[in-house]
Amino acid sequence: MARILTLTLNPALDLAIRLGALQLGEVNRTESTRLDAAGKGINVARVLAKLGHEVTVSGLLGADNEQAFVKAFSECGMRDAFIRVPGETRINAKVSEAGGRVTDLNGPGLRIPGHALEALNARVGTLLSGQEAVVISGSLPPNVTPAQLASLITAIRERGVSVWLDTSGPALTSGLAARPTGIKPNENELAGWAGQPLETPEARLQAALRLNAEGIEDVLVSAGSEGVLWAQRGSALEATPPRVAVLSTVGAGDTLLAGTLHGLLSGWPRERTLRFATALAAESVRHVGVGDPKAADFDSLQTQTLVRNPSNGEMHG
Amino acid sequence: MARILTLTLNPALDLAIRLGALQLGEVNRTESTRLDAAGKGINVARVLAKLGHEVTVSGLLGADNEQAFVKAFSECGMRDAFIRVPGETRINAKVSEAGGRVTDLNGPGLRIPGHALEALNARVGTLLSGQEAVVISGSLPPNVTPAQLASLITAIRERGVSVWLDTSGPALTSGLAARPTGIKPNENELAGWAGQPLETPEARLQAALRLNAEGIEDVLVSAGSEGVLWAQRGSALEATPPRVAVLSTVGAGDTLLAGTLHGLLSGWPRERTLRFATALAAESVRHVGVGDPKAADFDSLQTQTLVRNPSNGEMHG
Repeated sequence: MARILTLTLNPALDLAIRLGALQLGEVNRTESTRLDAAGKGINVARVLAKLGHEVTVSGLLGADNEQAFVKAFSECGMRDAFIRVPGETRINAKVSEAGGRVTDLNGPGLRIPGHALEALNARVGTLLSGQEAVVISGSLPPNVTPAQLASLITAIRERGVSVWLDTSGPALTSGLAARPTGIKPNENELAGWAGQPLETPEARLQAALRLNAEGIEDVLVSAGSEGVLWAQRGSALEATPPRVAVLSTVGAGDTLLAGTLHGLLSGWPRERTLRFATALAAESVRHVGVGDPKAADFDSLQTQTLVRNPSNGEMHG
Repeated sequence: MARILTLTLNPALDLAIRLGALQLGEVNRTESTRLDAAGKGINVARVLAKLGHEVTVSGLLGADNEQAFVKAFSECGMRDAFIRVPGETRINAKVSEAGGRVTDLNGPGLRIPGHALEALNARVGTLLSGQEAVVISGSLPPNVTPAQLASLITAIRERGVSVWLDTSGPALTSGLAARPTGIKPNENELAGWAGQPLETPEARLQAALRLNAEGIEDVLVSAGSEGVLWAQRGSALEATPPRVAVLSTVGAGDTLLAGTLHGLLSGWPRERTLRFATALAAESVRHVGVGDPKAADFDSLQTQTLVRNPSNGEMHG
């Protein structure tokens, strides 16, 4: 198993609230409330830890409400290397009504003192030795710039460690200039980079191959139930997930990235890696939380995942 | 200064969310999120601690999200004697829109294992020595019965320590049977006990005096901006608070109770006590949180508080 470091610069506490029907302006009684440590890098780490890897989690965490994070890291067997920042990590509330309507109330990120970012850069430097890959996932705090993200990627690449980046908007654009090893945009994020809508699989394929040509070795594009495209050094594979009943897509992209990294670091053939990662992401949308490789029907989900070469349509069984 | 124990059996974390306008079914960006330790007994303790008393806080607290509580107890200089219960303390979310609409999403209380209630009873027993008063405030967890609350009150009264009770519904009815020293119902809670609407000051006065006759020494009735009625052993006083701009009434009743207890335990005349407590409650509604006796204009608020004897209308200047 591999040693992997995941970085979450703008984590969140997810507050899940369930109730019958929300009455605005009234006092509503909820059926349940639940506060969970969240953040894309932490989700990736959860999957990698389940798969047996030695995972270190780092990034920037509010010191005043760290408890749910510390508990999650301990329960999942992750090494906690987060820099603590004065204040509270933001809270993202998700209100789910019995009728199916979901309302998100996403908090603003914590403002980061300059010395905290310096401390993070220094800590990443000391953590890199022996790591086989670094994953940087999620948005940036309000006062961390895309250029600062790019510098972090450059510093890691200069140490010869591979970096996967999963972010969007200016952070993705700026991060790409620092040539991360791999990226995992969804279809909208890829279109944002391309500067135009990418509505067909062919358009997405061409955009991904262009990123390969620009020096991004691995481009993994998630397009929900339409499937996954993986362009690696100019050669592409596509996967179609099995049909499943979707309960929550939160964490599906993180599961896909973690599953792919698992196959890569295990030296698996590309087809096996993409099948595994796509099936694990499909597993994850059936419930709240990341994918579970120990799900009873996971072998069946893998069998039902179709992998093919988009240039010749050849199926990999 | 006095030693006082407050008990909160069903505390909550208050999550304050502020945003422009809430769009149901959408992803909303909020201006701020803030998680605070709450619970009526803890609010009473905050005020008493500000007033210089030696306060111990106890009750039942979820072990999995205790951080905000531990921090608040430490910051306010309260002694933490809460029994930890497996699981999470409930979260009450309050969504405030720029237009003034406030939507409450109140979580269900934590279910309490039987041994936790036994542990609380035992801890209260060891804490009672040297306490001059106990305050029991707020609702009961879903599986703690009103009869169990009554037993707790009886056990404290048998040790000769005075008990103030601030709760509602069946918990209040059952608690009254155990003859607490004092209670602080609001007008609706008093009407609930009386079994009929109490719309006039005279009707509230008669109900309060009836409670005195049944053995409740102090009956402190809060009726918002209409004022406060305090019936003590068959003799009543009324107070009208100064007009203030109301921002949040959360914690006003707790401030009133704490201010009254402060005067009682300081040996103040009744008029002075009621004036002080009513003015401090008025101070509290001008901002989020409990009343601040160090507010710059607190002397002026006291001067503007009118105290009178309802039987003869005599004003106390």
